Amino acid sequence: MDTLRIGLLGLGTVGTGVVRLLRTNGVLFEERSDMRLRLVRIADLDLQRDRGLDLRGFDLTQDAQAVVTAPDIDVVVELIGGIKPARELVETALRNGKHVVTANKALIARFGQDLLHVAEKRGCELAFEAAVAGAVPVIKALRESLAANQIDQIHGILNGTCNYILTEMREKALPFAQVLKSAQEMGYAEADPSFDVDGIDTAHKLAILSAIAFGTPMDFSSISVEGIRHVTEVDIGWAKRMGYRIKLLAIAKRGISGLELRVHPAMVASDSMVAAVDGVFNAVFIHGDFAGTTMYFGRGAGEKPTASAVVGDIVDIARNHVFGIRRRVPLLSTQAEYLRPLPVVSMDDLVGEYYLRLAVVDQSGVLAEISDVFRRHAISIKTIHQEGRSSQASVPVPLVLVTHETTERHVRAALRDLEGLGSVREKPHFIRIERVFT
Amino acid sequence: MDTLRIGLLGLGTVGTGVVRLLRTNGVLFEERSDMRLRLVRIADLDLQRDRGLDLRGFDLTQDAQAVVTAPDIDVVVELIGGIKPARELVETALRNGKHVVTANKALIARFGQDLLHVAEKRGCELAFEAAVAGAVPVIKALRESLAANQIDQIHGILNGTCNYILTEMREKALPFAQVLKSAQEMGYAEADPSFDVDGIDTAHKLAILSAIAFGTPMDFSSISVEGIRHVTEVDIGWAKRMGYRIKLLAIAKRGISGLELRVHPAMVASDSMVAAVDGVFNAVFIHGDFAGTTMYFGRGAGEKPTASAVVGDIVDIARNHVFGIRRRVPLLSTQAEYLRPLPVVSMDDLVGEYYLRLAVVDQSGVLAEISDVFRRHAISIKTIHQEGRSSQASVPVPLVLVTHETTERHVRAALRDLEGLGSVREKPHFIRIERVFT
Repeated sequence: MDTLRIGLLGLGTVGTGVVRLLRTNGVLFEERSDMRLRLVRIADLDLQRDRGLDLRGFDLTQDAQAVVTAPDIDVVVELIGGIKPARELVETALRNGKHVVTANKALIARFGQDLLHVAEKRGCELAFEAAVAGAVPVIKALRESLAANQIDQIHGILNGTCNYILTEMREKALPFAQVLKSAQEMGYAEADPSFDVDGIDTAHKLAILSAIAFGTPMDFSSISVEGIRHVTEVDIGWAKRMGYRIKLLAIAKRGISGLELRVHPAMVASDSMVAAVDGVFNAVFIHGDFAGTTMYFGRGAGEKPTASAVVGDIVDIARNHVFGIRRRVPLLSTQAEYLRPLPVVSMDDLVGEYYLRLAVVDQSGVLAEISDVFRRHAISIKTIHQEGRSSQASVPVPLVLVTHETTERHVRAALRDLEGLGSVREKPHFIRIERVFT
Repeated sequence: MDTLRIGLLGLGTVGTGVVRLLRTNGVLFEERSDMRLRLVRIADLDLQRDRGLDLRGFDLTQDAQAVVTAPDIDVVVELIGGIKPARELVETALRNGKHVVTANKALIARFGQDLLHVAEKRGCELAFEAAVAGAVPVIKALRESLAANQIDQIHGILNGTCNYILTEMREKALPFAQVLKSAQEMGYAEADPSFDVDGIDTAHKLAILSAIAFGTPMDFSSISVEGIRHVTEVDIGWAKRMGYRIKLLAIAKRGISGLELRVHPAMVASDSMVAAVDGVFNAVFIHGDFAGTTMYFGRGAGEKPTASAVVGDIVDIARNHVFGIRRRVPLLSTQAEYLRPLPVVSMDDLVGEYYLRLAVVDQSGVLAEISDVFRRHAISIKTIHQEGRSSQASVPVPLVLVTHETTERHVRAALRDLEGLGSVREKPHFIRIERVFT
């Protein structure tokens, strides 16, 4: 039996999980791939920290550079995260003819196109199933299982931290800041949470999925991103009353005018499947012209789920290695020479329904004034709720409106006009309503 | 660019879908596999029927035997269904060195082990993603994406007809027979529905999944099968009141005493993900030691979804063909020489909670009499509901009980004793309560 020799960069949470997995299920791989997986070297700057792991017998080093150039390594597993020094290490590994398996979404979303090019030239695999939705095999589903389909839409919940926060806010009727704090204490959110709660992590993953789905070069910069900091428990409460839940969605759609690529909080029907995805779970819905909707669900992060995806990629490489082949499946499903950028639809041209919550002075004539703004911008109103009068005329009352389908340009313009009215007391809250399939 | 030459057996619903798909998305495959897919021959006994499909340009024949032996065919797509003559045709195709792609669950579940052996010996692919859950890529997920995991549990909804019937019964509070009739009129159920409603189709699919999941030879005969004919709208109503939904579940679990392999209606918590899978959809939940729970959802049948899976398998074969390799992934994930049968747990030894509904005479002393039966069989009762007295003492009233955890052996014995009581007027209804993960 042949051996696939693995070098691991980064012994953090996921790295520890990979070591544990290789040790626990080693026999399985031999039965499933006719190949022995051997972890020959581990690089980490901190070799002292106790990880609850017996590291005797491993070749440990602080020199990652030596691993990516070592002649006795077939596959480099990059679990350092971030751009520096991961980017350079991955590139060096590929240039040295090594396959790379990574869970690094930021790296792939931002520099994936260049790295794919290097991998392509050197005939190496660059595998990143673990970069999107953790244990959920959505990359393989898109690249292989759905290869017969023209994909026209993807939407999903790709960040467990945000989904946990929104779930807690709904279930316990607590404000964002308080839930974030307890999420940080429980280790569900980072000390600096902005990557997660500002939607950037979700957008990284969407950049990867949309390139594979639509056969476009990877382009993180064309995604519109809005996070969940501005979502209040009040809006979550209103959503509930109106039959919706608020989720941070990643959405990619192909239409006649181009691609919609957007990450933002959205109201979805509370009886939809995506609304049922709560807590730290991830879910991706994919619509293809023949498959219809398929959905993939599971844990999007954590030591063991992410290790499952990383080692799944290694087994895939091993199964190629047995036959002496590499790059059986094009890295973005479509072969590099056929990748074509598609025009991206501006958020201004987005068509949909909108939820708006205003704080208005409780006086006669105010509703007429506000209605007139919507009329001027050709927005028609589907539902309107005004809460019972406040005891004092000076305390504003909430006015909640849902529009019929309109474009975001009109909504933005109307919001600007509304802000200028004396009777509107706070910056209006607005959340898109997304009509999801299934 | 090289060409993969396809012979299609059976131009029914799915066959028509495959022809349409190959025609619609032909360019995609070339971009995705560096291989042209060409449908060179179609065999069907009925070449006259109008399928709304332009068949000019195809080589049509009534002689399936000629297709499976033809020297100009690389891949045979078997969409005839059933055992005869599909079994012989598939075997002949494999013996002639052709890859086979099939959607035939009965064939794979019952004779898959023999056919895999032939495929193995001849170095051919035998691909059957379409045989389980239609467009949902659960075979690939198990064989490849989750290859790093020890799988310990699968449960799922694998038959859209049953799920549609149970959903309609719940939503419209209608009896089984009436919903079945309208499902037949709408084409959701066959004229002879027994394969579906008696659980056999679900069991075929479970046989396939469990072999892959647990590394055992395929063994349909060891699955305990119970269908949905005996589920009444009354029980569905009781389930609802108690916070459950009734689903026909396929369940495979590996425990210390062996495998549980069973198909039966089960009550599941109404806020679980599996309870949310309604109508004709399929869903499979898989629990692995590292991945945790992942779930796969979509359309389990129909022209286009099944065609998506069939052609997905063809693309997979094409991507191997480009490199001149075959059988990259062992057909049951584990290589043939490592497949090992595992002991199967008898249904008598099943441990769980049970829902029981009795029709009892409304007289003093009856409850004591019934309670005594449970006491004798060491079954403790978790909840008990008795409906308001009937106006006449001779008309029986419903008595609904939920047991604490016990073994099915005890429940069966208690039911026999209960049937013997004068105060119990009908054969008791019993439904297993399944505690599902997530």
